[in-house]
Amino acid sequence: MTPDDLKALLTAVGDGRVTVEEAAERLGDPAVGDIGFATLDLHRRERCGFPEVILAEGKTAEWTEGAVRRMVEAGQDVFATRVSADQAAHLAAHFPQADQDRLARTFWLPMPGWQPANLGRVWVVTAGTSDLPVAQEALVTARVMGARADLVVDVGVAGIHRLLRHRDKLAMADVVVVVAGMDGALPSVVGGLIDCPVIAVPTSVGYGAAFGGVAALLTMLNSCSAGVAVVNIDAGFKAGYVAARIIRRMYKE
Amino acid sequence: MTPDDLKALLTAVGDGRVTVEEAAERLGDPAVGDIGFATLDLHRRERCGFPEVILAEGKTAEWTEGAVRRMVEAGQDVFATRVSADQAAHLAAHFPQADQDRLARTFWLPMPGWQPANLGRVWVVTAGTSDLPVAQEALVTARVMGARADLVVDVGVAGIHRLLRHRDKLAMADVVVVVAGMDGALPSVVGGLIDCPVIAVPTSVGYGAAFGGVAALLTMLNSCSAGVAVVNIDAGFKAGYVAARIIRRMYKE
Amino acid sequence: MTPDDLKALLTAVGDGRVTVEEAAERLGDPAVGDIGFATLDLHRRERCGFPEVILAEGKTAEWTEGAVRRMVEAGQDVFATRVSADQAAHLAAHFPQADQDRLARTFWLPMPGWQPANLGRVWVVTAGTSDLPVAQEALVTARVMGARADLVVDVGVAGIHRLLRHRDKLAMADVVVVVAGMDGALPSVVGGLIDCPVIAVPTSVGYGAAFGGVAALLTMLNSCSAGVAVVNIDAGFKAGYVAARIIRRMYKE
Amino acid sequence: MTPDDLKALLTAVGDGRVTVEEAAERLGDPAVGDIGFATLDLHRRERCGFPEVILAEGKTAEWTEGAVRRMVEAGQDVFATRVSADQAAHLAAHFPQADQDRLARTFWLPMPGWQPANLGRVWVVTAGTSDLPVAQEALVTARVMGARADLVVDVGVAGIHRLLRHRDKLAMADVVVVVAGMDGALPSVVGGLIDCPVIAVPTSVGYGAAFGGVAALLTMLNSCSAGVAVVNIDAGFKAGYVAARIIRRMYKE
Amino acid sequence: MTPDDLKALLTAVGDGRVTVEEAAERLGDPAVGDIGFATLDLHRRERCGFPEVILAEGKTAEWTEGAVRRMVEAGQDVFATRVSADQAAHLAAHFPQADQDRLARTFWLPMPGWQPANLGRVWVVTAGTSDLPVAQEALVTARVMGARADLVVDVGVAGIHRLLRHRDKLAMADVVVVVAGMDGALPSVVGGLIDCPVIAVPTSVGYGAAFGGVAALLTMLNSCSAGVAVVNIDAGFKAGYVAARIIRRMYKE
Amino acid sequence: MTPDDLKALLTAVGDGRVTVEEAAERLGDPAVGDIGFATLDLHRRERCGFPEVILAEGKTAEWTEGAVRRMVEAGQDVFATRVSADQAAHLAAHFPQADQDRLARTFWLPMPGWQPANLGRVWVVTAGTSDLPVAQEALVTARVMGARADLVVDVGVAGIHRLLRHRDKLAMADVVVVVAGMDGALPSVVGGLIDCPVIAVPTSVGYGAAFGGVAALLTMLNSCSAGVAVVNIDAGFKAGYVAARIIRRMYKE
Amino acid sequence: MTPDDLKALLTAVGDGRVTVEEAAERLGDPAVGDIGFATLDLHRRERCGFPEVILAEGKTAEWTEGAVRRMVEAGQDVFATRVSADQAAHLAAHFPQADQDRLARTFWLPMPGWQPANLGRVWVVTAGTSDLPVAQEALVTARVMGARADLVVDVGVAGIHRLLRHRDKLAMADVVVVVAGMDGALPSVVGGLIDCPVIAVPTSVGYGAAFGGVAALLTMLNSCSAGVAVVNIDAGFKAGYVAARIIRRMYKE
Amino acid sequence: MTPDDLKALLTAVGDGRVTVEEAAERLGDPAVGDIGFATLDLHRRERCGFPEVILAEGKTAEWTEGAVRRMVEAGQDVFATRVSADQAAHLAAHFPQADQDRLARTFWLPMPGWQPANLGRVWVVTAGTSDLPVAQEALVTARVMGARADLVVDVGVAGIHRLLRHRDKLAMADVVVVVAGMDGALPSVVGGLIDCPVIAVPTSVGYGAAFGGVAALLTMLNSCSAGVAVVNIDAGFKAGYVAARIIRRMYKE
Repeated sequence: MTPDDLKALLTAVGDGRVTVEEAAERLGDPAVGDIGFATLDLHRRERCGFPEVILAEGKTAEWTEGAVRRMVEAGQDVFATRVSADQAAHLAAHFPQADQDRLARTFWLPMPGWQPANLGRVWVVTAGTSDLPVAQEALVTARVMGARADLVVDVGVAGIHRLLRHRDKLAMADVVVVVAGMDGALPSVVGGLIDCPVIAVPTSVGYGAAFGGVAALLTMLNSCSAGVAVVNIDAGFKAGYVAARIIRRMYKE
Repeated sequence: MTPDDLKALLTAVGDGRVTVEEAAERLGDPAVGDIGFATLDLHRRERCGFPEVILAEGKTAEWTEGAVRRMVEAGQDVFATRVSADQAAHLAAHFPQADQDRLARTFWLPMPGWQPANLGRVWVVTAGTSDLPVAQEALVTARVMGARADLVVDVGVAGIHRLLRHRDKLAMADVVVVVAGMDGALPSVVGGLIDCPVIAVPTSVGYGAAFGGVAALLTMLNSCSAGVAVVNIDAGFKAGYVAARIIRRMYKE
Repeated sequence: MTPDDLKALLTAVGDGRVTVEEAAERLGDPAVGDIGFATLDLHRRERCGFPEVILAEGKTAEWTEGAVRRMVEAGQDVFATRVSADQAAHLAAHFPQADQDRLARTFWLPMPGWQPANLGRVWVVTAGTSDLPVAQEALVTARVMGARADLVVDVGVAGIHRLLRHRDKLAMADVVVVVAGMDGALPSVVGGLIDCPVIAVPTSVGYGAAFGGVAALLTMLNSCSAGVAVVNIDAGFKAGYVAARIIRRMYKE
Repeated sequence: MTPDDLKALLTAVGDGRVTVEEAAERLGDPAVGDIGFATLDLHRRERCGFPEVILAEGKTAEWTEGAVRRMVEAGQDVFATRVSADQAAHLAAHFPQADQDRLARTFWLPMPGWQPANLGRVWVVTAGTSDLPVAQEALVTARVMGARADLVVDVGVAGIHRLLRHRDKLAMADVVVVVAGMDGALPSVVGGLIDCPVIAVPTSVGYGAAFGGVAALLTMLNSCSAGVAVVNIDAGFKAGYVAARIIRRMYKE
Repeated sequence: MTPDDLKALLTAVGDGRVTVEEAAERLGDPAVGDIGFATLDLHRRERCGFPEVILAEGKTAEWTEGAVRRMVEAGQDVFATRVSADQAAHLAAHFPQADQDRLARTFWLPMPGWQPANLGRVWVVTAGTSDLPVAQEALVTARVMGARADLVVDVGVAGIHRLLRHRDKLAMADVVVVVAGMDGALPSVVGGLIDCPVIAVPTSVGYGAAFGGVAALLTMLNSCSAGVAVVNIDAGFKAGYVAARIIRRMYKE
Repeated sequence: MTPDDLKALLTAVGDGRVTVEEAAERLGDPAVGDIGFATLDLHRRERCGFPEVILAEGKTAEWTEGAVRRMVEAGQDVFATRVSADQAAHLAAHFPQADQDRLARTFWLPMPGWQPANLGRVWVVTAGTSDLPVAQEALVTARVMGARADLVVDVGVAGIHRLLRHRDKLAMADVVVVVAGMDGALPSVVGGLIDCPVIAVPTSVGYGAAFGGVAALLTMLNSCSAGVAVVNIDAGFKAGYVAARIIRRMYKE
Repeated sequence: MTPDDLKALLTAVGDGRVTVEEAAERLGDPAVGDIGFATLDLHRRERCGFPEVILAEGKTAEWTEGAVRRMVEAGQDVFATRVSADQAAHLAAHFPQADQDRLARTFWLPMPGWQPANLGRVWVVTAGTSDLPVAQEALVTARVMGARADLVVDVGVAGIHRLLRHRDKLAMADVVVVVAGMDGALPSVVGGLIDCPVIAVPTSVGYGAAFGGVAALLTMLNSCSAGVAVVNIDAGFKAGYVAARIIRRMYKE
Repeated sequence: MTPDDLKALLTAVGDGRVTVEEAAERLGDPAVGDIGFATLDLHRRERCGFPEVILAEGKTAEWTEGAVRRMVEAGQDVFATRVSADQAAHLAAHFPQADQDRLARTFWLPMPGWQPANLGRVWVVTAGTSDLPVAQEALVTARVMGARADLVVDVGVAGIHRLLRHRDKLAMADVVVVVAGMDGALPSVVGGLIDCPVIAVPTSVGYGAAFGGVAALLTMLNSCSAGVAVVNIDAGFKAGYVAARIIRRMYKE
């Protein structure tokens, strides 16, 4: 609520056009969906441009189902991530019309009539094949949020020519998401080839001193290419989300 | 060099319009500035939209001076970061026309006639007063790269109303850079209030279990607000750089 | 035993009212319950106001059963935490009258006639739904120790208005326990809104750089709100215990 | 602002007793002290019962002076912590009437007429002599916030009888703050002797695998005594603050 | 492609002996095997002397099979490591002629007619019996890449005479690979006895403060014998690979 | 071999009493048991007073069996630790006369006629019941090596009187082994009560910031009682071994 | 105080031979030296066989002086460690008769007439020359506590023959203290050559991944020689103290 | 000493050609230089091909001087590393003929008549200018040990064409040493371009999450290029040493 909105509301109270009770509610309590085990943020869409996204991990299948149901009732597109095989089966039984991606482990149930917006240009690039599930999560996220997004797979720096083949394509991107485990070196090379923002996602691919993605995370934070920002280990969702925020700023009206 | 460029060049060789030697040079050796102790990337501007930036830390004053001089000779804008007091004095003696910011520890020597582009809208927000030097580095970086950028200072989450005062302003930003040490909680709150990308910068402000910025870094990587990407501890420069890359994509024709 | 008690006892020995043997026992050996694999502290209730609590984790079901039985024999209320499903089934068979909470993983077998004291006002607040098991452990602990305690669920900082709805309620609390994983940012915000002590519990909810709760733990230790003290990761029990100690000091004359 | 306050305010607007502008200001902008390099939270006292405390570390002497001055102008008691020798000298020159404690590194400038409230009973206990500066910070903090607080020094567990001498005294406390470095074992012993809340402060005293206080911090988080909550390494201030919050809840009308 | 090659190619274009299209392809796109979920580096053999090696871990059995098949089609020797039991069974069904080592968890399918080259002298030495799987991986790798390699097992430093028995043998090696977990002390002793390069492999053998191989890794990085270089924890493959690179440099014409 | 032994041997060679071959063998090759997958140190008993102990963890049941068999053949007492349930069953089938302790996970097969020596006085003290398996491993180890050893269970510092009951007993010990997880505070208290060496064993008992025993390990390394030395996490075997070495020095002949 | 002592005391009270006041004092308050900033444990000598040792680090010179003075008054031998150059100068001025070792950084002021006991046999062995200060601290500590102790310097495992020269000497020791930084491998080799207890001291000698002694510490905790116990990084004092405790048990009737 | 040597020696004893004393010395005591504070390994040259190298760090200037002098007396080439400015000045006064490199911080005093061997081909490649001191240490080390070695400076992956310019040169190397801080990504790219062994040296260049070289170290250990082995952070000396060992194996007779 902007100051102008506020003054307008108060003026309306002063004029009697709005009751005191109505005004108090609008000022004091933005819409939430209180369902006992969760307090859904039904105002997120207004503030942040996209509804609250459900992190399924750590929730029972029933809790997840309940959260989905409440958001559907509120007329919101429902997106859930890190959905386990068991949760996916449970949700499929209750929401058969939803679009579930097993590789990305995502659940997508938009309002009827939703169409992909396909705005701008996002490339999701992986260093190896094992990084695919995380990359797919980024891809699906960016797409449901309205971005046009595609994959370039397995172009790690041990065979740098594999990346250089795609240089022109990447040079025309609005955002590049780079997904890499092990040494996490790919974003540094990509960041030095292009002029758009690079969102780097470390993955837990690797063993030993990879420490579940810590090695790749540190590499990316210390990238010698300045145009690289980083998200959490395995957080394909976050990378897709940030990429889509950039795209929506650029292309939406 | 795009495939079309390449074919054009080869056709020119075939036609005799370009000599074999010339072609070999253009293919084999993009411009670098080799000055013994450094190999300046004089092609960075073409690939990445902004010349190579000099990290002064870890270099002697003479090395830094040499790098600056070589870039000036190559007709490039020169930006250096993490310039110590000693280096700053040395550089001021040799390049009195440069613009040095003591709080940000930056050095800026653009080509004659340079004017700030003032594109878009970047807000650099700090949790505390002690985060100012890092924020200033982000601010200066974003500005020299063409963005319009301004500060909101000391609005940490212990007094959340200080931030909420600026909500309307932030809601209209293209990018928000959030700089915070200690608990690093501010980006999570900011990310939940607005719909543009948030670049979070952990700072080494704090003591004990702050571990020189590690606590804030982890907080930001695990932000419950999905629209937050993170850069290295105290890396105001990187945050400003990423922000400017986003702005330039949006506004430069 | 206070110095006055001591002098009184010694005087009684001097007077012959107490035998040397009796005095030696009272001085040298406070009551313990020695059952071979454990030495139960049957004097804990006198010193600390509540009997020893059994940590079931790491014990066999038989060891746990034996400890419960010995405490019942000593006429003490028996509380156990981190009871696994197997242990719970075993205990239910032997102590069917006990009150077991499956979400909190607690076992509660008070002496006959026990009534909840419902003293003061404790709020247990969670950042997300996945933090519920830990919060429930805090809740149950506070209640069996005599506090009046209730839950506020899923009001994390990404949608700060969800918390602000409860501001008045929290402002009247005696203690607030805040349970959060991932970025662990919620206690900092809560601590800045109210004037009572905040006990923060980091949870292992999250992935990647959450490091099993380390990120949230560090956030909370570095909270920019000064009124926040922290307990171990997932230690709902400890938070409830500390909260109850505060309440009992306040309300138990 | 409670819902009732809000309705009252809106009713007053409806009645014309309060202008729209006044109401907008009261709703939209709680008092802050904006001084360029800082945004002082002048409303902290109302929400949290004590004014914002200035962390001097990381600020220039001038910034610290400016923050103090602005709070004095706002009619607030001014407390600053981690004041360096240089800052202390600078502040002494500008605010000669302030009470500075060199061991605790604190600065205290209350409004004229302030008297210590001396409420309740806080004991600050240290394991060793080297823990004294941190303990003194806790002591001064608790006192300026209204608690009656005193020291018990150097009673670490290597000579447990030193602690047992004070058992009766500690058993009558409302809160005990325990300050310890190295093995950080003291809070576990204290917590098992008494029934009030224990606030443990790890210190950076020690060497080698003490890791600047990490060893003591982990010990305290894993205390086998359940009634122990922990604050940051060397954070005497926080321990005193939490202790005072508990005391104020107990004793202030 | 050397500068001379480049000039030759361009001259051929100038002469019309090579078409522009052909030249562009040779310059711009070294051979890759693009199979959707992977981009095989079919040029690795030319650059690095041995084809790309497939890391099976983290891939589905089908992905692994597909990668093997594509490399066979390209006429390359196929080596895969960290093959799980399930993957091994799957691959055995499709490539029964391949040589799989269950202890080393390797898969080897050379082109028909391949013969081991048996160049030079590599000794793979282990500190304990539990280090055998990692040592075997090093052994197999070195052998398929053309080195003559053999094992010395269980000669850790707690019984130093076990190692000294093999001193003459080791003194005649070209490379010694030392595999050790727990304290990882063996490479320091070996490095002080001989004059050839030592490649040390820390293993995850051990418990407690072994931290999954971190203790051994740090020991080896800090070896007081200067001639020791280190690879990742459990990375028998890498040690064998580096050893073979050294051997091939020495002995291949 | 002492210099005198050496001279004696060489003199014997000079005298012809010993052949050159015999002398070479005695000088160059102390007895080992080479069984392909292991090189048993059959000389350990002579150097260190007790035969090589087999660490079963990380070995197959067959490897373990083979090592046991070879040591039996060499006429040595066989002790193995960290024997899994599967390994134990396999070994029981082949060596039914062996003494296996399921709680300690040990295997003990002495030469016929072995009798416990029962030398000196070792107390193994645990902080909690869950520390019992580690304590039992220490106990069994100390006994098979000839020490008289007994347990004191569950006397952690939260109820310090439980420990003080045993003060006289402990004061007469030759060595005290203290086993503790969680805060690991017990050795500091024990070390301050007695005058014999204390061997501290951190255990992985605990959760959250216990970090699998790291918290207890650090506590013990930083013990404010100087007479405490530490072994690896969960290394009951090592503690028992060190204790027995001390005892054997004291009491054997 | 043993139970028999206790009964004797109480009987004496019953008999009137001891007054109630006297008995209360003896039971309730073992001697301490309370000097405001410290509570000296004047009973340590009785319990632990040696008086409290003063850790000078972290104390002012005046605090250290005060503690020394109070112990002298109590008729106790005074030993202080980690004495800085400044503290040493201050103490030398006040206690010129004390014996200060600048390499070990120790202060030793025994009661008049003290003579070294020279019991048993302790060898302090170092891996390198840089480990000397820590080794010297161990040496001095062991000596003032009554042990006969000597140095073997710079016999690290990179030249294992340097150690083997001393094998016979070490084989006759009662305790061997091994001091090593960098890879910390020496204790594992020593532990496998002899049959007495080995006390290992990691030092902070080294750089990079030595992490201030952490690498050596982990090596030693994971020693493949079972007879090795470990003390804190750079804790020569502790190693000497534990060694002396063992010696005193052995040799002091 | 090989078994054949041993038999020969013993035969000579049997024949009386060698005295018992001589034989005992040759068997029992390889040459060491015992100078009180150090035990120089004068046999290192025979075993390892190059004399013991002196690590000056952590030694006094006098200790360093003494070690140099003793090695000169033994007729050995003397090489010292990590020589501080103060040590360098001290050594220059005593050994003016030595060759000291201030950038590399090395000291080199060969026997008269020494000539560089210039064997093979080593390239030392750095990612940035700040990595130069470490690279120079590698360079000098490789040279004094007989290798031909040269530098390629500042070709980090942010401008990958800088490296590609040198591809042909590197492809002909026998060993490539790659020195990089910050993200440490360069060895992965180099390792994928060539077929010789790569020795990677992480440097402490960088800030924040570079953690003094840890980030680069982990990157290199996890390199997706298999032909990369790693040495300690900032250990230019070790990299040069390993490189020279490889070269000497290849080229010396």
